[in-house]
Amino acid sequence: MKQSLLISICLLITYATSTAQQHAGQSEVKTDTIHSEILKADRAYTIYLPKSYDTQAQRKYPILYLLHGLSGMNSNWFDKASVKQVQDQLVASGESVEMIIVSPNAGGNPETEWNGYFDMPGWNYEQFFFSELLPHIESTYRVIGDKQNRAVAGLSMGGGGSAAYGQKHADTFGSVYAMSALMAIPADRPIPQNQPAPSKRQLLTKSVIENSCVDYVNNASEAQKEQLRTVKWFVDCGDDDFLLDTNIDFLRAMRAAKIPLEFRIRDGGHDWLYWHSALYTCLPFVSRNFQP
Amino acid sequence: MKQSLLISICLLITYATSTAQQHAGQSEVKTDTIHSEILKADRAYTIYLPKSYDTQAQRKYPILYLLHGLSGMNSNWFDKASVKQVQDQLVASGESVEMIIVSPNAGGNPETEWNGYFDMPGWNYEQFFFSELLPHIESTYRVIGDKQNRAVAGLSMGGGGSAAYGQKHADTFGSVYAMSALMAIPADRPIPQNQPAPSKRQLLTKSVIENSCVDYVNNASEAQKEQLRTVKWFVDCGDDDFLLDTNIDFLRAMRAAKIPLEFRIRDGGHDWLYWHSALYTCLPFVSRNFQP
Amino acid sequence: MKQSLLISICLLITYATSTAQQHAGQSEVKTDTIHSEILKADRAYTIYLPKSYDTQAQRKYPILYLLHGLSGMNSNWFDKASVKQVQDQLVASGESVEMIIVSPNAGGNPETEWNGYFDMPGWNYEQFFFSELLPHIESTYRVIGDKQNRAVAGLSMGGGGSAAYGQKHADTFGSVYAMSALMAIPADRPIPQNQPAPSKRQLLTKSVIENSCVDYVNNASEAQKEQLRTVKWFVDCGDDDFLLDTNIDFLRAMRAAKIPLEFRIRDGGHDWLYWHSALYTCLPFVSRNFQP
Amino acid sequence: MKQSLLISICLLITYATSTAQQHAGQSEVKTDTIHSEILKADRAYTIYLPKSYDTQAQRKYPILYLLHGLSGMNSNWFDKASVKQVQDQLVASGESVEMIIVSPNAGGNPETEWNGYFDMPGWNYEQFFFSELLPHIESTYRVIGDKQNRAVAGLSMGGGGSAAYGQKHADTFGSVYAMSALMAIPADRPIPQNQPAPSKRQLLTKSVIENSCVDYVNNASEAQKEQLRTVKWFVDCGDDDFLLDTNIDFLRAMRAAKIPLEFRIRDGGHDWLYWHSALYTCLPFVSRNFQP
Repeated sequence: MKQSLLISICLLITYATSTAQQHAGQSEVKTDTIHSEILKADRAYTIYLPKSYDTQAQRKYPILYLLHGLSGMNSNWFDKASVKQVQDQLVASGESVEMIIVSPNAGGNPETEWNGYFDMPGWNYEQFFFSELLPHIESTYRVIGDKQNRAVAGLSMGGGGSAAYGQKHADTFGSVYAMSALMAIPADRPIPQNQPAPSKRQLLTKSVIENSCVDYVNNASEAQKEQLRTVKWFVDCGDDDFLLDTNIDFLRAMRAAKIPLEFRIRDGGHDWLYWHSALYTCLPFVSRNFQP
Repeated sequence: MKQSLLISICLLITYATSTAQQHAGQSEVKTDTIHSEILKADRAYTIYLPKSYDTQAQRKYPILYLLHGLSGMNSNWFDKASVKQVQDQLVASGESVEMIIVSPNAGGNPETEWNGYFDMPGWNYEQFFFSELLPHIESTYRVIGDKQNRAVAGLSMGGGGSAAYGQKHADTFGSVYAMSALMAIPADRPIPQNQPAPSKRQLLTKSVIENSCVDYVNNASEAQKEQLRTVKWFVDCGDDDFLLDTNIDFLRAMRAAKIPLEFRIRDGGHDWLYWHSALYTCLPFVSRNFQP
Repeated sequence: MKQSLLISICLLITYATSTAQQHAGQSEVKTDTIHSEILKADRAYTIYLPKSYDTQAQRKYPILYLLHGLSGMNSNWFDKASVKQVQDQLVASGESVEMIIVSPNAGGNPETEWNGYFDMPGWNYEQFFFSELLPHIESTYRVIGDKQNRAVAGLSMGGGGSAAYGQKHADTFGSVYAMSALMAIPADRPIPQNQPAPSKRQLLTKSVIENSCVDYVNNASEAQKEQLRTVKWFVDCGDDDFLLDTNIDFLRAMRAAKIPLEFRIRDGGHDWLYWHSALYTCLPFVSRNFQP
Repeated sequence: MKQSLLISICLLITYATSTAQQHAGQSEVKTDTIHSEILKADRAYTIYLPKSYDTQAQRKYPILYLLHGLSGMNSNWFDKASVKQVQDQLVASGESVEMIIVSPNAGGNPETEWNGYFDMPGWNYEQFFFSELLPHIESTYRVIGDKQNRAVAGLSMGGGGSAAYGQKHADTFGSVYAMSALMAIPADRPIPQNQPAPSKRQLLTKSVIENSCVDYVNNASEAQKEQLRTVKWFVDCGDDDFLLDTNIDFLRAMRAAKIPLEFRIRDGGHDWLYWHSALYTCLPFVSRNFQP
C-alpha cells in the first residue's frame, strides 16, 4: 500500500501537468481541407472548437478568422503562438468568450507557393475566401454567422489582410485586430511595372500595393468612412518593427478620417514573441465586440 | 531593373523576419555534454551566450542556472519558452543585462531516467551539480563567478530545486526565482517508508520530502535565517496551479521567519504559458540583483 | 488675425487638457444623503452616473456598490483613486461597460463615528444597507436591479464587507471583487470577551469576528457552497499587505470547498496605489459578469 | 487586559495603513525656494529625498528632474501622480534605485504667470535652469552630478521641455523620458508673426516653435546626431492624446536619423491617469540608465 501511495503521488505530478488536452469537454484543434473551384486546388485550414462544442449540441458560436504571415501556413498560429492554450486560459478567467477560431492556409514557400490574401492573376484568393471558404466553414460548423459575431485578425501579411478585409467587407466583420501589419508597401519603394511573366512573389507585391489599407482610408468617400466606423479597429505594432511606418500612416489616415481605433505601440519587433503576447489583447478585444 | 527592385522588396520582407538568429554579434544557444565521475554518466546542458560574448573576448558575465521540471530536459526552456528570444529582447530594451544562461539535464522519462536535483541513493545529483557541473561551466565559459553574479531559477521540480539550492547554498547564489515550485510534497500525503527496491520515481519523491523548502525555513536557526536574508527571493505561482498550497506554505514560513521575498500569484496554471510569461519578470529580476 | 490664431493654439492646449468633466453627455459624480430609520441618522453616498445616463432616458444600468475602508468615507474612492476617470477611460476602450457606481458612507473617525458594514448593537448597518440604502438607490436611479447586474467591491474593511455581503446575500450579487480585504481578524489574536460598555471600535472588531469570511466558507453546508458558486469571486491582495494571511486563509477555504475564484497577489501594500491600480482589473471583471 | 488587546487589534489596523510617511529612515518630500538673478524672481521647487538620505550621510545620489505641464506647478507631480508613493514602492521591490527627484516651478495660470522651459524675451527660464537652479540643487543636496547619473522627464509642455533639454544639453543628461510631449506646435498651425506686445502665452508658443524637438532632429548634423545617441530616449504617448501626431513626427525623425529610442503608445489620453501609470515605466527606466 505504501508503494502505491508513493506511486500515486508521482502520478499525480505527471498527471496534473499533461492532461489538459485530452479530456472530454475540452477544446479541440484539428486540420481539414476544402477543395476550391476558384483556385483549382485543395486548401487546408486549422480550426479551434471551444470546449462546450460537443456537449452543447445546439449552440452556435462567434468566429474569429486568424490569418498567418508571408511564407507561413494554417498551423502557424497554433504551433508557434499557442492559440489554443491562450484562448483556453482566457476563457477560464472570463476575459475571452467561447468562439471558433479558424486559420486558413494562404502561404508556404513564396518561391514556389501562392502567398497572399488578395486576388491575383491566376489566383483569386480573396474570391475563394469569401465565396468558398467562409460559407464552407460557417455551414460545416455551428457559427452564428452575422457581422457582430465575426472578427478577423492577423499578423504581418495577414495583418494587412485582416485590415483590408475589414475595409472592403465592412458588413462581414464586426471587429479587426491587425498585428505588425503590412498595411502597404513602404512608400520609399518604386511601383513595379508590368512584366511579361511575373513571379508569384511579384504578383503578391502588386496585390498588396493595389490593396493598400492606407490608400483605402485616404481615398474613402463619406459613405465608405461611415461604413468603416461600423467596425471596431485595433492596430498593434512593435516599436522595433520594420513595418512600423506603414502602421503609423494607417493611424494618421484613420485619425484624419475620424474613424475611431485603438492603437498600441509596444516593445518588440516582428516576431512570434510579439504575436503570442498580442493574443492576450486580441482575444478579449474580439470577445467584447461579439454580441451573441 | 524593375524586376530586381520587386525582388528586393520581397526579399526585404523575408529577410527582416528571419535573420535575427544568424548574424555575427548575436546571442547563441548551444548544447554540450559533461562527463560526471559522481554520476558515472554523461550529462547534457544547453547554454545561452550573450551577443557580445565573441566580440568582447575578455569580458566576464553573470550567470543564471535555469532548471527544468519533472520529465523535462536541458533543451526545454529554449524550445518551449523561447528563452533566447525573450532575453534578446529584454537586453535590447535595457530591462535585462547580458548574462550566460545554462540549463543542465536533470530528467527525462521518469520511469526509466533519473529525475531530480537532490542526492539520492545511487544518484548524487546535487553533488554533481556543485562539484562538477558548476565548476566545469564556470571554467569553460567566461563567468564572473561570485555570489552576487550568480542566480538560479526554475519551474515545478526545478522551482523547488532552485529554492532548495538557494537555501542550502546561500553563499553561492545572489538571487532565486522559483516558478510554480514543488516546494514540498503536499502535506496531506503520507510519508513513504523504506522499501527494498524503490524505483527512481520513489527515490525522487523521498528526496523532495527530505529537501522540503518549507521545512528548511521553519527549522532554520537564527544564523541560517540571517544567511537566507543574503539571497534575493522571488516566488511566482499561478492561481490555478495544483502546487499553489505548498507555495503559500513557503510564503508563510518566510514571513514568519522575517526573510524578505517578492511573492506573486498571477492568473494561470502549471504550464508553459505561465513559465514563458514569467521570464519577463524573472530575467529583469536576476539582472537587477547582479552586481558586475 | 495672426494674434487670434496664436491665441487659438494656446487655447487649444488648455482646452484639450481640462474639459473632459464639463461636457454634456459626460459621466457625472454627485453626493446625496438618505435618512435611515434603522440607524436614526442621515447617511451620505457618492454616486457615479454613466455618460449616457441623461441622453438615454429609458435605459437601465447595472450597478456596482463600492465600499471604502476603516476611517474612510463615501467620497474616498472618487477623491483618492480616481474612479470616475478610470471608469471613463475603460468604457472608452471597451474594457468596461457603462454602469452606475455608488459608494455609501460607512465610516469616519473610528473614535467618534460608527465604522463597519455589519450589524452591531445600536447600529444595524447591514440591515440599513439591504433594507433602506439599496432599495432607495435602485428606485431613485435607473438600475436593472437583478443579481446578474449587481456587483459589490471594496477595500480593506470594505473588502471584507464586500466578501461577506456576497456570502450572506449570494442571491443579491452576481460578482464580488475584494481588495486587501479584512476577511477576518488575524488568527493569532484572542477573541474579545463581553464588556460593560464597549467602544464603537470594539463593537466593530466583534462584528468582523462574527462575520469572518473564512469561517463562513469553512462552516458552509453543501447548499450554501452551491449558492456561493453562483457568485463570481475575485480576491486581490498585495504581497506586502499586513492582511495577506487572512486572504490566504480565505483562498484555502474556497479551494477546499471547491468554490471557483480568481486570486491574485500583486506587488504592493495596503494603500491607495494598490486600490487605484486594482480598479483596472475590478471594473472589467464586474463588467464581464454583468448580463444586461 | 482584554480591552487593551481589543484596542491593540484596532490600533494595529489603523497603524498599518497610515505610518509609511512618518518613520525615520523614510523618504521625504519638501518644498523650498531659490532666488533667481536671471529671472529677477523667487522660484519654488519640490524635492524628494530617498529614505537613506539622512542615515547615510556621505552617500551621493543620482537625480531626476521632473517637469510639470502648462498651467501646472512644482507640487503637481507629488499631489496628482503620487510620485513619492510610486518611487517608494518601486525601490522596495528593487525596480527603481534610490534617487533624488526635483520638480521646479515653471508655470501657474498662463494668463498671468510665465510658463515654459525655454528662453523668452524677458524670461530666460532655460538660462535660469542650467545656470542657477541645477547648480543650486546639486550643491545643496548630495547629488553625484555627472551625465550618467542625471535624468530629465516630464509631461506635456514638460515632456517637450525634457526632450529639448536632452537634445540641447546632451552632455548633461544620461536619459530622457518624455510623456505626452509637446514636441512641437502641430504642423497645421501657421507660424505666428512678430507683434508689438505679445502676451506671455504667445511668447511661450513662439519659444516652443523655436525649440521644436522634431526640427532639432531633422536638422541635426552628423556630430549632433552622434551626441543624441549618447542619451537614452523613451517617448510615451496615449492613443487618444491630441499631441500624438507631434510624437509620431518625433519618432519618424529619430528613426530617419538612426538614433535609438524606446517608443510606446498606450491606451489613454492627456491626463493624470496616463502620467501616474507612466511613472511605473519611467522610474525603472531612468534607474537602469544611472551608473552610480
